[in-house]
Amino acid sequence: MAASTPLRVIPLGGLGEIGRNMMVYEYGDTMIAVDVGLMFPDVEHPGVDLIIPDWQYVLDRKERLRAVFLTHGHEDHIGAMPFLLREVNVPVFCLKLTRGLVQVKLKEHRIEADVTVVEPGDAIEVGPFTVEFFSVSHSIPDSAGLIIETPVGTVVHTGDFKIDHTPIGGQHTDLGRLAAVGEEGALLLCADSTYAEIEGYTPSEQVVAETLDRIIGDAEGRVIVTTFASLISRVQMVIDAAEKHGRRVFVTGRSMVNNVNMARDLGYLRVPGNMLMTPNQVRDHPDAKTVIVCTGSQGEPTSALTRMASGSHQQIAISPGDTVILSSNPVPGNEKAVYKNIDMLYEAGAKVVYNRIADVHVRGHAAREELKVIHRLVRPRHFVPIHGEYRHLVLHRELAISLGMPPEDAFVLTDGDVLEIDDDGARLGERVEADYIYIDGLGVGEIDDFVLRDRQHLANDGLVVYVTAVDRHSGKLTRPPEVMSHGFAGPDEEPALMEAVSQLLIDVLGGEAKHADWRALHESLKDDIAGLLHRKTHRRPLVIPVMLEV
Amino acid sequence: MAASTPLRVIPLGGLGEIGRNMMVYEYGDTMIAVDVGLMFPDVEHPGVDLIIPDWQYVLDRKERLRAVFLTHGHEDHIGAMPFLLREVNVPVFCLKLTRGLVQVKLKEHRIEADVTVVEPGDAIEVGPFTVEFFSVSHSIPDSAGLIIETPVGTVVHTGDFKIDHTPIGGQHTDLGRLAAVGEEGALLLCADSTYAEIEGYTPSEQVVAETLDRIIGDAEGRVIVTTFASLISRVQMVIDAAEKHGRRVFVTGRSMVNNVNMARDLGYLRVPGNMLMTPNQVRDHPDAKTVIVCTGSQGEPTSALTRMASGSHQQIAISPGDTVILSSNPVPGNEKAVYKNIDMLYEAGAKVVYNRIADVHVRGHAAREELKVIHRLVRPRHFVPIHGEYRHLVLHRELAISLGMPPEDAFVLTDGDVLEIDDDGARLGERVEADYIYIDGLGVGEIDDFVLRDRQHLANDGLVVYVTAVDRHSGKLTRPPEVMSHGFAGPDEEPALMEAVSQLLIDVLGGEAKHADWRALHESLKDDIAGLLHRKTHRRPLVIPVMLEV
Repeated sequence: MAASTPLRVIPLGGLGEIGRNMMVYEYGDTMIAVDVGLMFPDVEHPGVDLIIPDWQYVLDRKERLRAVFLTHGHEDHIGAMPFLLREVNVPVFCLKLTRGLVQVKLKEHRIEADVTVVEPGDAIEVGPFTVEFFSVSHSIPDSAGLIIETPVGTVVHTGDFKIDHTPIGGQHTDLGRLAAVGEEGALLLCADSTYAEIEGYTPSEQVVAETLDRIIGDAEGRVIVTTFASLISRVQMVIDAAEKHGRRVFVTGRSMVNNVNMARDLGYLRVPGNMLMTPNQVRDHPDAKTVIVCTGSQGEPTSALTRMASGSHQQIAISPGDTVILSSNPVPGNEKAVYKNIDMLYEAGAKVVYNRIADVHVRGHAAREELKVIHRLVRPRHFVPIHGEYRHLVLHRELAISLGMPPEDAFVLTDGDVLEIDDDGARLGERVEADYIYIDGLGVGEIDDFVLRDRQHLANDGLVVYVTAVDRHSGKLTRPPEVMSHGFAGPDEEPALMEAVSQLLIDVLGGEAKHADWRALHESLKDDIAGLLHRKTHRRPLVIPVMLEV
Repeated sequence: MAASTPLRVIPLGGLGEIGRNMMVYEYGDTMIAVDVGLMFPDVEHPGVDLIIPDWQYVLDRKERLRAVFLTHGHEDHIGAMPFLLREVNVPVFCLKLTRGLVQVKLKEHRIEADVTVVEPGDAIEVGPFTVEFFSVSHSIPDSAGLIIETPVGTVVHTGDFKIDHTPIGGQHTDLGRLAAVGEEGALLLCADSTYAEIEGYTPSEQVVAETLDRIIGDAEGRVIVTTFASLISRVQMVIDAAEKHGRRVFVTGRSMVNNVNMARDLGYLRVPGNMLMTPNQVRDHPDAKTVIVCTGSQGEPTSALTRMASGSHQQIAISPGDTVILSSNPVPGNEKAVYKNIDMLYEAGAKVVYNRIADVHVRGHAAREELKVIHRLVRPRHFVPIHGEYRHLVLHRELAISLGMPPEDAFVLTDGDVLEIDDDGARLGERVEADYIYIDGLGVGEIDDFVLRDRQHLANDGLVVYVTAVDRHSGKLTRPPEVMSHGFAGPDEEPALMEAVSQLLIDVLGGEAKHADWRALHESLKDDIAGLLHRKTHRRPLVIPVMLEV
């Protein structure tokens, strides 16, 4: 391959928005993908279950995609794997825990795939690429970055990371390896930008370990701890503190139970033999000797903690004397749900400890001083900020420039942009499509923005349906109209409003005269009825006419 | 009145949740209300415009309500006034700016009311109550607390406040007056809890003034500043900095223009003669000499800033070289909208300065050390934390206890609780109703939780309507059914789904046999169709059957 063939760097997700991370590196007729994640919908996507990347560009060149590399096991990095593999079944490479998490998903979707476990330092050759995994600290074990050798030069792709010099699981970010890459000369750095607006350093998990130990040691009653189910190191701290203070542990909430079992089986969680309790055991165990680890850190309505707070959990109800620790931050968009949960816990009489009032959580991403360390070590020729909302990418690019990178070498890309790099330098190529794909129930990509707009309209003011049976010749009503509403009016006002619509229909269509162009009349009637309802209520329900010609 | 008659303290809004603040003090047959605010709905209340307190308790005793006292002019303290005065037109007392803001509302609603302007130090006698206003610092001028003398003792009701020793408008919290009340002996303190989870002190507005001055002084291009329209002192800072650095100011966004005009007319805003520009003037004025003050600090979709960012503002489009300052915090629930706006501004090429990366905002409420000052000065016998979500109330009560108050004297009340205080002490009485009243369009209280549940259902999966015309004797179809959907399925899948429903209807109702109990059959058909749609899509639209008997 001539050296003038460019390396093409194509983000299909995760740039300019959090979630559904996916990056494609393409050289000649070989493509590799790094991460295939999903994004959780928000209020702008009512009823949508998941959002995945639009990988049409890849599907149109299926035979070129030769491997997928996964940096770590979080949903926003692996969650869309079943949907991709269903379309193009390529080999997958990742560390052990990540494989465990991917396999659970693939099994649910009944997909067989070739997922190879690698270790940091292992290098995989795929056509012109050699991909080496290197260890990073993050909020899940077995997180890795990638060093990708290409004919044009070496790419460092960090994945999600932070620098923690005293991590609980013992997993450091391999600064030495990055220094060596920098020494040899790096072509491109693609680095995590999630916390590019936060000054200083992210504190070590050790800080949280000390706080948890103190709270669990001081508590007189039961202690209930919630955190992200994938945050294995945090669960380890809780188990360690429980052991130290002579408490036993009950784990509840489906994803927490699954993750604890899986992490224990794979050796990522050290649990003393007699530590865990069954539902029967926890019922009889003294409160002062009990720690409960559960789901619910994001205020999810069906999570264990929410059910405990509202009194609908099978085994546990919150009562005065309980100490509840939220060892987590609300993910953007979940603030209201999380704080509502905290209020419910207080109302149930618990003492609640959360990140605003104690050091019970640290972030999983590098803050600005950590990012500077990575830039200084790798000293890349080009830079692309990845993982983050648009402002994070901009701030991270500015950080790179403040460290001496020429502005023309640092690129803020968004999904679908194509960066081409060859011996002559780097430049933007022609964009590819990188839209949202909505998953709603069984449908992948069936729901579009028009459907969502209808849903939002329905959500705001409900709907009114009216049914008219008319004579096919004269257009005159053959029977009284039927009018009904949903989500529009309360029980006191509804009858009069429905009656008013009915009367309007009778006034216009019920007379003796034959209507010349009665189909056009029907068309304008719909607007008249919408107008009538708006005048009477200042609301704008969706008006649905049904006409039967008899 | 015998001293054994208790003072009754009845919160009808604002305890356990932010917004729609309203407190009633009742002694014998006299009631006074303090603040009559509204709350803005969130995603749990689709389509609802406003939420106001449920004041049925007051309406049932209309003749007892003798006056309303307003502490300051924010919506969550005055916004429901038109709705209350429409039901019971009583005299209103407040400071001058608050009156200006209330009058605008009353005018919109065409309500005439007797609103008397008072000054700090003025005392109003209402039956057994004497109500004195005292000055407090807050994020709007003319904020006040109340010292309410009752036959049982003196109540201090702070309203929203913070302690700012170098406020921009010159308005201090009158610590001296509070010390005098404490010296004489206070019965009850009701104090702002909004920031009871924040350690330390809220910084002075002076900090923000210095940051704004530096950013406006250093900027090479246009500077665009958004903040809360009611935050007059912040607008004053921007005007002062603009004057100092030789820039002129353009104000845009309806509520910002209205508030600037009103504040200037009433003397709360000092604007040099030639400072403000018209739309025509700003078009021709050099960028380096321009400051724009606008609405949009909460990411509101139709605000001036959002329109500038998206290119739909009449006069201004964001362009590279612009510096945009968000001198505000996202109100809980608005985080996503605010950060989306920031991303859009970056994408349009602006430099964006916001609270996470610079000191461009301080809060309007007292943090824990300030609260301690108030408790120490007033030294009340009883304490009720007000203004805040439930956890804030609990934390504020714990703060009072940590300062030496006996736990039995400090009460966490929620809306509808009744605290009775007499010479024998304080205790909870029988609760009164204090529900939500939803305002949707013209309806006050018409919409209820059932309607909202329908709307949420519609929002999640849309709806399917089917219309059958059946013979009134046999129940058989007399014509093919009509089936349609909204917000349910995308254009590719919809025809087949509608066809499947239609076919099911024909299969069941179209046969030759006469159905014995065909009305019951119709009932079960609706469930069959819901089941069919769920099997095919894993979604659960609202299924609306319409049957015409012919």
